[in-house]
Amino acid sequence: MRDADIYTQQGFGHSSGFGARPALLIVDFVVGFTDPAIYGGGNILDAVANTRELLAVARERGLPVAYTRVVYADDGADAGVFCQKAKGLERLTEHAPASQIVAALAPRAGELIVRKTQPSAFFNTMLAPWLSGKGVDTVIVTGCTTSGCVRASVVDSLSHNFRTVVATDGVGDRALGPHEANLFDMGQKYADLMTCAEIAVRIRQAV
Amino acid sequence: MRDADIYTQQGFGHSSGFGARPALLIVDFVVGFTDPAIYGGGNILDAVANTRELLAVARERGLPVAYTRVVYADDGADAGVFCQKAKGLERLTEHAPASQIVAALAPRAGELIVRKTQPSAFFNTMLAPWLSGKGVDTVIVTGCTTSGCVRASVVDSLSHNFRTVVATDGVGDRALGPHEANLFDMGQKYADLMTCAEIAVRIRQAV
Amino acid sequence: MRDADIYTQQGFGHSSGFGARPALLIVDFVVGFTDPAIYGGGNILDAVANTRELLAVARERGLPVAYTRVVYADDGADAGVFCQKAKGLERLTEHAPASQIVAALAPRAGELIVRKTQPSAFFNTMLAPWLSGKGVDTVIVTGCTTSGCVRASVVDSLSHNFRTVVATDGVGDRALGPHEANLFDMGQKYADLMTCAEIAVRIRQAV
Amino acid sequence: MRDADIYTQQGFGHSSGFGARPALLIVDFVVGFTDPAIYGGGNILDAVANTRELLAVARERGLPVAYTRVVYADDGADAGVFCQKAKGLERLTEHAPASQIVAALAPRAGELIVRKTQPSAFFNTMLAPWLSGKGVDTVIVTGCTTSGCVRASVVDSLSHNFRTVVATDGVGDRALGPHEANLFDMGQKYADLMTCAEIAVRIRQAV
Repeated sequence: MRDADIYTQQGFGHSSGFGARPALLIVDFVVGFTDPAIYGGGNILDAVANTRELLAVARERGLPVAYTRVVYADDGADAGVFCQKAKGLERLTEHAPASQIVAALAPRAGELIVRKTQPSAFFNTMLAPWLSGKGVDTVIVTGCTTSGCVRASVVDSLSHNFRTVVATDGVGDRALGPHEANLFDMGQKYADLMTCAEIAVRIRQAV
Repeated sequence: MRDADIYTQQGFGHSSGFGARPALLIVDFVVGFTDPAIYGGGNILDAVANTRELLAVARERGLPVAYTRVVYADDGADAGVFCQKAKGLERLTEHAPASQIVAALAPRAGELIVRKTQPSAFFNTMLAPWLSGKGVDTVIVTGCTTSGCVRASVVDSLSHNFRTVVATDGVGDRALGPHEANLFDMGQKYADLMTCAEIAVRIRQAV
Repeated sequence: MRDADIYTQQGFGHSSGFGARPALLIVDFVVGFTDPAIYGGGNILDAVANTRELLAVARERGLPVAYTRVVYADDGADAGVFCQKAKGLERLTEHAPASQIVAALAPRAGELIVRKTQPSAFFNTMLAPWLSGKGVDTVIVTGCTTSGCVRASVVDSLSHNFRTVVATDGVGDRALGPHEANLFDMGQKYADLMTCAEIAVRIRQAV
Repeated sequence: MRDADIYTQQGFGHSSGFGARPALLIVDFVVGFTDPAIYGGGNILDAVANTRELLAVARERGLPVAYTRVVYADDGADAGVFCQKAKGLERLTEHAPASQIVAALAPRAGELIVRKTQPSAFFNTMLAPWLSGKGVDTVIVTGCTTSGCVRASVVDSLSHNFRTVVATDGVGDRALGPHEANLFDMGQKYADLMTCAEIAVRIRQAV
């Protein structure tokens, strides 16, 4: 039996739907993750371009927008086990060029910037209370990498009880095998998969 | 370039090592996830058998041992978005046969049983404080599914700053494609990959 | 200067208000905390009686209702530092008479029962995601003790970004000095203070 | 019966003790909380002076040291319900003079600075994983205010399963009534109470 068929037969792959109050979460689209010489590559730049269009729609309709950055202390005091697996991650400090959000997606006043040291945008950050305080019921996720911080954030978004939508062409990865494999996992168990264009239509309907 | 080479070039895939105070975490080895007619299949039964041997070593050396079960309220009051993606999950209630830990791995007094409704063993559970209270520095993970609750638990274990080791033949999945893909992701970014036999040797050295 | 004047001068004691989607949280009104021979006494029984009336209004208007119980494992595997400070707390197990919710406030189907081992109703429990999933913006708190689990839950409710209201005559304590002192702290910094009768009026306006 | 007698009779007020691996947590000793014209006053400056001596001992013995600061975004994007109760709190931004740690306690490289927006040092911050990663079993707490962020942090420290010690003369408050009332609550239920001098002796014994 094909993998997808096993999931279907066991009850996975249903839609969790789109609620009345969506928000946009943009994960780790920072210089270092878009530069192939650091942590970038693959289809990440395409995902940035698609996110830029989706962000315009989100702003036009007044959706809450949140961004994540990886930010470690200048002295490395908060470098933990993750920095042992991924050596050099702790160089992403507050003012390091590699840790700045890309210019195409520069945040505006009132949008939330989440500083994090772990994969998930939600892990020990104020993101969930911020979304909850704005009455959000649906989290739309773009960013990178699909197989890393996007996946971790999507699992936590679901766990916090938000309907979760992954923008299939708004997320990117340095390598396409893990990108595809993680889209499969997320679509079966954690999130609905839609293109940025499809999401834009739904935002205009919902808000 | 091969996927693995991209990761190596960008600094991933290093070892986080094995500490002095390991614990064993056994994720969702319950009847319903070992039965192919419910959520089981693939290599899950092999993983149970290998975990049984590793559990014997862990107990012999006095390691803290924790198990997870998926447990929803009898009236479905706590069913959330996860139950929309995976229909029927909320049938795993306290006394449902499908939600009981398999007999081969029956917990003993003093071992922790974590009831959870979300993918990760750590998400809004008392697992991390329990491990921390026992001075644990390394979490060895077995269970199922590799691409689901194991992966989510491993990401959180790392995020809680525990060195994390995935037992490659102690974790299983209903479908082998996602099993392999998630072992790759975890090995590159979140955990060290070792067989149960290799882990047994390290436990005997460490404790 | 009087204590209250210092707070006023420094900008504390403002109202956070009452939102459009309130929920009722009933903390630890279990047999053992209403029995003076165990953990009860003081004004706790009066608070149960007042909560009973508020609960009727909450149900009439369809508010989400959540209860907490203290529940430790039968074998004490999850007893931690809290059980060292408060000896015997670990006797509150799933089936112990002392850990059952009082009959006057028996939960109904669809209402959430939160099992906890720590002071706060929110600490590593699924309460916040459950409330968020129901679109709640305001948490009304009754229960006991004012200086213990109510206070801890109120601080976390605020931290999760819920407007928080403490029912002054719906919370009780084994000793009245700490009851009054904690109402003062909560009113200045974390929650609005209202009587059950005042809250009932606001619920009928809001919903 | 006196309040304290009720607690004794019901099993509270026992010691949770001092472990082998203590850390020092210094809560919100920033300019704005030491200045009576902002959020300061009472016995806070005395507590800073006593903490300075304890910090010297902690550093001499190589204890992990963590500090908290209240830090909101420059544009107020993350101001929540807490800022409605305590108006003006959101003025404590990264570079505001009032949000800087006092000069007498200037952090050194390798010590952790926790930025927070809520009362507790632990709430959605990386403090617990950081302490756990250093093998800490005991958290010594100084800072301000006793009835606010110290109390909230102490409850969470206990909940994370750390033995917790409050330095009675290393914590301070703008008003002495709440200071005393909260020391009582914490001593009965959450933490051991010791003076800075007593703690210094225990550190020298433990490490």
